[in-house]
Amino acid sequence: MTDVNHDHVPLAALEHGTPFADRHVGPAPAELARMLDVIGVGSLEELGEQAFPKGIREQDLRMALPDPATESEALDELRALAEQCTTNVEMIGLGYHGTVTPPVIRRNVVESPAWYTAYTPYQPEISQGRLEALLNFQTLVADLTGVEVSNSSMLDESTAAAEGMTLVRRAGKAKSPRFVVDADVLPQTLSVVQTRAEPLGIEIVVADLSDGVDGLPDGEFFGALLSYPNASGAVRDLEPVIAAVHERGAKAVVAADLLSLTLLRAPGEMGADVVVGNTQRFGVPMGFGGPHAGYMAVAKGFERQLPGRLVGVSVDADGEQAYRLALQTREQHIRREKATSNICTAQVLLAVVASMYAVYHGPEGLKAIATRTHRMATVLAEGLRRGGVEVVHDEFFDTVLANVPGRADEVVRAARERGVNLRRADADHVGVSCDETTTRAHLALVWGAFGVEADADAVDGSVDEALPAALLRESEYLTHPVFHQHRSETSLLRYLRKLSDTDVALDRSMIPLGSCTMKLNATAEMEPITWPSFANLHPFAPAEDAKGLLQVVSDLESWLAEITGYDAVSLQPNAGSQGEFAGLLAIRAYHHSRGEAARDICVIPSSAHGTNAASAVMAGLRVVVVRCDDDGNIEMDHLREVLDAHRDDLAAIMVTYPSTHGVYEDTVQDVCAMVHEAGGQVYVDGANLNALIGLARMGKFGSDVSHLNLHKTFCIPHGGGGPGVGPIGVREHLAPFLPNHPLQPAAGPETGVGPISAAPWGSASILPISWAYVRMMGPEGLRRATLTAVAAANYVAKRLDAHFPVLYTGEGGYVAHECILDLRQITKDSGVTVDDVAKRLADYGLHAPTMSFPVAGTLMVEPTESENLAELDRFCEAMIAIRAEIDKVTAGQWPVDDNPLCDSPFTTASLAGEWNHAYSREEAAYPLGRSMPKIWPAVRRIDGAKGDRNLVCSCPPLEAYQA
Amino acid sequence: MTDVNHDHVPLAALEHGTPFADRHVGPAPAELARMLDVIGVGSLEELGEQAFPKGIREQDLRMALPDPATESEALDELRALAEQCTTNVEMIGLGYHGTVTPPVIRRNVVESPAWYTAYTPYQPEISQGRLEALLNFQTLVADLTGVEVSNSSMLDESTAAAEGMTLVRRAGKAKSPRFVVDADVLPQTLSVVQTRAEPLGIEIVVADLSDGVDGLPDGEFFGALLSYPNASGAVRDLEPVIAAVHERGAKAVVAADLLSLTLLRAPGEMGADVVVGNTQRFGVPMGFGGPHAGYMAVAKGFERQLPGRLVGVSVDADGEQAYRLALQTREQHIRREKATSNICTAQVLLAVVASMYAVYHGPEGLKAIATRTHRMATVLAEGLRRGGVEVVHDEFFDTVLANVPGRADEVVRAARERGVNLRRADADHVGVSCDETTTRAHLALVWGAFGVEADADAVDGSVDEALPAALLRESEYLTHPVFHQHRSETSLLRYLRKLSDTDVALDRSMIPLGSCTMKLNATAEMEPITWPSFANLHPFAPAEDAKGLLQVVSDLESWLAEITGYDAVSLQPNAGSQGEFAGLLAIRAYHHSRGEAARDICVIPSSAHGTNAASAVMAGLRVVVVRCDDDGNIEMDHLREVLDAHRDDLAAIMVTYPSTHGVYEDTVQDVCAMVHEAGGQVYVDGANLNALIGLARMGKFGSDVSHLNLHKTFCIPHGGGGPGVGPIGVREHLAPFLPNHPLQPAAGPETGVGPISAAPWGSASILPISWAYVRMMGPEGLRRATLTAVAAANYVAKRLDAHFPVLYTGEGGYVAHECILDLRQITKDSGVTVDDVAKRLADYGLHAPTMSFPVAGTLMVEPTESENLAELDRFCEAMIAIRAEIDKVTAGQWPVDDNPLCDSPFTTASLAGEWNHAYSREEAAYPLGRSMPKIWPAVRRIDGAKGDRNLVCSCPPLEAYQA
Repeated sequence: MTDVNHDHVPLAALEHGTPFADRHVGPAPAELARMLDVIGVGSLEELGEQAFPKGIREQDLRMALPDPATESEALDELRALAEQCTTNVEMIGLGYHGTVTPPVIRRNVVESPAWYTAYTPYQPEISQGRLEALLNFQTLVADLTGVEVSNSSMLDESTAAAEGMTLVRRAGKAKSPRFVVDADVLPQTLSVVQTRAEPLGIEIVVADLSDGVDGLPDGEFFGALLSYPNASGAVRDLEPVIAAVHERGAKAVVAADLLSLTLLRAPGEMGADVVVGNTQRFGVPMGFGGPHAGYMAVAKGFERQLPGRLVGVSVDADGEQAYRLALQTREQHIRREKATSNICTAQVLLAVVASMYAVYHGPEGLKAIATRTHRMATVLAEGLRRGGVEVVHDEFFDTVLANVPGRADEVVRAARERGVNLRRADADHVGVSCDETTTRAHLALVWGAFGVEADADAVDGSVDEALPAALLRESEYLTHPVFHQHRSETSLLRYLRKLSDTDVALDRSMIPLGSCTMKLNATAEMEPITWPSFANLHPFAPAEDAKGLLQVVSDLESWLAEITGYDAVSLQPNAGSQGEFAGLLAIRAYHHSRGEAARDICVIPSSAHGTNAASAVMAGLRVVVVRCDDDGNIEMDHLREVLDAHRDDLAAIMVTYPSTHGVYEDTVQDVCAMVHEAGGQVYVDGANLNALIGLARMGKFGSDVSHLNLHKTFCIPHGGGGPGVGPIGVREHLAPFLPNHPLQPAAGPETGVGPISAAPWGSASILPISWAYVRMMGPEGLRRATLTAVAAANYVAKRLDAHFPVLYTGEGGYVAHECILDLRQITKDSGVTVDDVAKRLADYGLHAPTMSFPVAGTLMVEPTESENLAELDRFCEAMIAIRAEIDKVTAGQWPVDDNPLCDSPFTTASLAGEWNHAYSREEAAYPLGRSMPKIWPAVRRIDGAKGDRNLVCSCPPLEAYQA
Repeated sequence: MTDVNHDHVPLAALEHGTPFADRHVGPAPAELARMLDVIGVGSLEELGEQAFPKGIREQDLRMALPDPATESEALDELRALAEQCTTNVEMIGLGYHGTVTPPVIRRNVVESPAWYTAYTPYQPEISQGRLEALLNFQTLVADLTGVEVSNSSMLDESTAAAEGMTLVRRAGKAKSPRFVVDADVLPQTLSVVQTRAEPLGIEIVVADLSDGVDGLPDGEFFGALLSYPNASGAVRDLEPVIAAVHERGAKAVVAADLLSLTLLRAPGEMGADVVVGNTQRFGVPMGFGGPHAGYMAVAKGFERQLPGRLVGVSVDADGEQAYRLALQTREQHIRREKATSNICTAQVLLAVVASMYAVYHGPEGLKAIATRTHRMATVLAEGLRRGGVEVVHDEFFDTVLANVPGRADEVVRAARERGVNLRRADADHVGVSCDETTTRAHLALVWGAFGVEADADAVDGSVDEALPAALLRESEYLTHPVFHQHRSETSLLRYLRKLSDTDVALDRSMIPLGSCTMKLNATAEMEPITWPSFANLHPFAPAEDAKGLLQVVSDLESWLAEITGYDAVSLQPNAGSQGEFAGLLAIRAYHHSRGEAARDICVIPSSAHGTNAASAVMAGLRVVVVRCDDDGNIEMDHLREVLDAHRDDLAAIMVTYPSTHGVYEDTVQDVCAMVHEAGGQVYVDGANLNALIGLARMGKFGSDVSHLNLHKTFCIPHGGGGPGVGPIGVREHLAPFLPNHPLQPAAGPETGVGPISAAPWGSASILPISWAYVRMMGPEGLRRATLTAVAAANYVAKRLDAHFPVLYTGEGGYVAHECILDLRQITKDSGVTVDDVAKRLADYGLHAPTMSFPVAGTLMVEPTESENLAELDRFCEAMIAIRAEIDKVTAGQWPVDDNPLCDSPFTTASLAGEWNHAYSREEAAYPLGRSMPKIWPAVRRIDGAKGDRNLVCSCPPLEAYQA
């Protein structure tokens, strides 16, 4: 805090009040002093000197960023930017539609720290709430699509389609590299699929399937992507085409509009193997492109190929039903270069919104919204027809394609004058999409733009529906009670509270997950994202509508470039994994542009995050692993060997800095130089940027490209497992190969690699969060955050080393911003595993650190700069107490199979029942005494294996609820 | 839900989607049908016919209200109204100042249902969170004022001053009816004090105390109200005046600015007996006048005279520290006509905000804000002086009074042109108040308005502080750890969550408190109140600045008039008690205006809410009680007798309709006629309006005036015990006697009774809540709410009658919207008390009904229309299970002093410990099995008597925290 007792603090300094950095950073000055004392250094600066390698350090680095704003100032500036956005009536369609977020969901999910500060539910015992919400999401998708197994969210519809393509390729038996795409899919989906296909050697065959089967190309292909309804609005029976695809030995992927499926026959009923799409219009604002939850559902038999997260039902140690992430062995962090998807982050927070929208409306409510949407479209179309405008398709759901030869621009302009954005399909065609928010007044505006006069009510009474009779849905959906119990706001409010109360998020405990950077998500950063001006923009609206938000984009791009030392930044990637992919694509395109297409080797250290390898494979690269030594550092001799062997085909090295071992390797500059010398490019994974800002910049110490995780270092909340944003920064020579977008030239270079997300600027609507963070911290605040994060990790390491040995340290014995606690010997001696310790921490009211990554049998702790000393001490004391418990097991005081560690966690119900243990109820539940803070787990230890054996991935049937 | 499967629902009907009423009303149609079945009626209409007296019923009543809007439409309309408000830089002062609400407090208190949907903490075991927050508030006030005991909030500064006046009158020994008021107190405070004094026969002597002791009038007086600083800004040493007041045998009330006390010597240190004021500038937006938390603190010896709520520290059954409301016997619902304050509602939510603002900033942060504010004022003053403008006072805190002979209007106008509102003190003087939000840029604007040029930074370096050296504060404040532990946002966020997690609010359980109408507070109603356009308006800003909000006021006034059948409505009263007082004042003024000043008898039935009698006394009326019969109805014969006896001096009758016994008395029309015939006026207490809307209107069946509770019937949340709004409606002949305001002619009739709240439109900033409710429900929705509330109460009555006899029913055996369960015989038979049942309900995860009101030994249940059948059944089943538990005690299966009822509630800690009971842990904690929903109380049964004996009303000293 500013010292205000000083006599002559100038007014200019007083004026700004408490700096935001004082609120963001956890330890107060006196606390920090105590921490530094334990670490054994005199100041944060000294810690930086000692812990941080001199070679890469930029002495006196002064980042050219604006001076820090207060929370009020930043909010005022953002409000002014919001006022520079114009929300027109958005009828462009193309996968993005107006929707009404029920206020109760907005306030109690999107604006509730209990939901948005949670992490991915890796500790299911303290994550039952969001797991249940995600199970509802899976049920929603599976029911409506009519295929059996849905995962719990994809990044967007276009990437989901691309994942569908690769899924059917590996799941099917066809040898052909060809994949058919209906010409009438969403244009951004076609582009994303093309971007993804090219490095994998998949040949995209665009086919006009408007007349059905005959449009399929000759020759073999391994799969086909169909659209239902089509981008142009047409609704066609896909069954014959799917049957033909199957006959040709290929698989069918259908991109479907989920709302339309409340009225239309389900794709699964027409034989689809994979169904993908977006749930945006289920209550999630368009947000100028994102974030929203994409979805993917697959027919029985493909479930073990599903990318992303899958929630399953299992039981806990007391035999009670419990939810968990299923089939985790499939994940890319285990499969590494054998993985075929690199998805980590999902869109959990948005999937929760979409699922709750369905819970609140129920099947009859959703059907009412779809019916209304459809009726608006039929009335609109009939009005146009009666006014002499040709409507191209007779059968459609929400989108009307009008044929206005040579007049498309004129109509679109006339609509804009009336405050309505339409789609210019081409010079002769205009698309108009209706949605939940469409009113008769909007129809009148559209008719006016076409020069037509009509009376909605009059037309309404004399027009038939425009859905093909043969495609009307007959099957039931959302029959599960949860979709029928919460029709009143009170009831939904309580359901939301009940679920979030079972989850441990940052609003109740530190979440010391190594490599995840669970820092403060400040309210001032979060408030703007639900402002209507940012939330209701269509991603393909004219850029002038989004002037204020595009200013946020451009500020943030330039600030991130300054922070990382790069020359250009793209904010399009909507997850870290997508950033990796985009970065590697840029490297690949660079080599190709220089006629060095043969360079396809990507060197990755053994310590790397599994996603690295998966991304490299997706980018068409071959992975070669370089070993790490006992200290966790790259073995330089082995690296030399590898580089020598690949002088002609080396594409890149991917290193994480500081390493995933939590240390600053002092060889990183040498590594960069060696790789460059061998003709390769250097990719520095920016996951650990929180340990660098203000000290060094990747773009200056030898890296060519990095992705950053705005949901780690830049305060976008984890949302229970997403959204994330994974922008990439590149040096100048790679800038021409950043992502771009077919529908928005301003979103990237003309020479770019194509879109890697559906939306031009990815998850644009959450960028104000990171903007506000940088704006409020200022350059000095950011640097202070880095050093405080390093101090917190070193404090924890010092306090715990005697109890759980710290596995790796850098020169001088310091860790970077996280530390790995080695339990392997302890486990050997006592039988107590990292799992036991992780679950036992729940009994201490704490979230576990990262388990067994990057080294099996260890815990990786990242406290971040936002935890104050009291919370750091609470964690340390819990760990020390747990160590004492372990010692009791080792000493034989407690049996190996009857102790509070292996039996953890404990629920309140377990206390109330019979008790036949070697330890008391108090030892189980209140190991530090009854005044210790408790967060009670909702279930006891969950049986993971059983859940995988009996995979149940949608809400359990009614019988399960009968007492 | 609308039936959307019907073939020809017109587009016009479809367009609006799910009606809000479907979300507000709990029971879905099928559920309602089941409820009606249990009640034994065929439809809601039939229930209305049966339960509601024909006499007063308005057949086919069609209220002229707008058709219902959807949530989106209502929010859009309010957003448009917000855009019609202009937030200028508000430097008017007069008790209202710019302040920065920390976003973390805004989101996690003001926008958090866990805080705002809670009720007054009458059940302390499930209210520890807000009790702790209020204890922090009391500590804040007591520490800063330097007097020992603070209550937890008053309605505003002016009413607090008036309460201070009456407190010292009853507490002191002086016989004189005279009360001295410094001429330089806030003008609205002087007016409110005058309004309050007049009916009580107190003579207000306005004295110019600017030169100290000499200004005191000759002759006796019982007390004096001083100001510190003065309204004009001057800071003067009050010690000599207070000493003189004491010498004269009188007591001193000081109205003090709490922020200034971080720098200035505390009033308590100068001998003040009572200190009052406002905590608005502690993070609570001005909100065009309210709500904010006023405060009152008293010196030792006066604590048992304190009006309002007082939180005290006690212990629970396990000996753990626990908080509770102390000295409850003092409350007006016990003292009735002997009470001298009618305060019920406090401003809890705002007190929580103010307390958390202090917790977040701590003493050094508050001092920094005060220092900055003061420095701005000194620089401002010096700039004016150097520019040739005379500054009246040399010693001031935040307010500069400039002497500009004849130019005040011109300066104020020039400031407005620059976007700044100043205070026109008189034709020659302009007041300028600085605050936390003042910047150097604002100073430049002000100087410009005065025609002065100055450079803030230059002046800053060469000006001394303007606080009298003798008055600089030397004593410490806020030394308690809670004011030092939460400097980071993360830490405060967790503290807020921890506290609210111990409270049962509407977001987790129904709160079936009879007479409190705990219905849904919909998010769409709540969202607008934190919009800056409404929140940042100064109450004395020109009306044109508040155009949109004044439209809300005027819409709401006319809608409430239409709903109640009255001719005029005033929204000024900021609590129900203030509405009662205002209504009775209108009656009194009416009689006076007709030369019938002798009419001073107020007849009140024995069943009335205690506040009624207290209000009558405050309005200078004498209370005569009329008896009720065994059915709970007014004894008509007795009434006739009373009226006969008081034909000449009858002023009014106050009746509640439906009665506090929860029944529709069918004699109400007769009562009205009889009273009118006897020359009296009829006051119908509108507390139970939720049982009337759409069926009958008080203004039409014979009442002359009513207050309404917007925090009951019209969805303003209870906020843990406030804010409330208590508007009054009157028939035409009383309209000239509504409240008005000295600083805002538009706020009431020229002939009005004076202000009864500090602000012209009371708690204006929360009126959008009720506006949105009426706007979204529409006339049919409101009527449906009434009938559903009646159905819910009758359903509960039918289900529970066999287990707990329903005490009163109307003709036909129906209750109105609440029912009284009679436990007196059960208690006699079993020893189990209503207290035991209330506490036991906490173990069932439910909040207790109202205890022992209006009849001792009973529980009054009001389920409201917002609870769905599942929740109603959960309550009924818990009550039935509790009855079975009682039977076990009666049968001797459980001892009278060792059973889950008398030992309830149970904490998790109590389960973990030793267990020596006649019942098992499972019987204690999971009486309905382990899958029952639980909300764990934070403490066990609290020892109230002990807390009253050892009154501790601020945070316990440090030692209490040492383990």
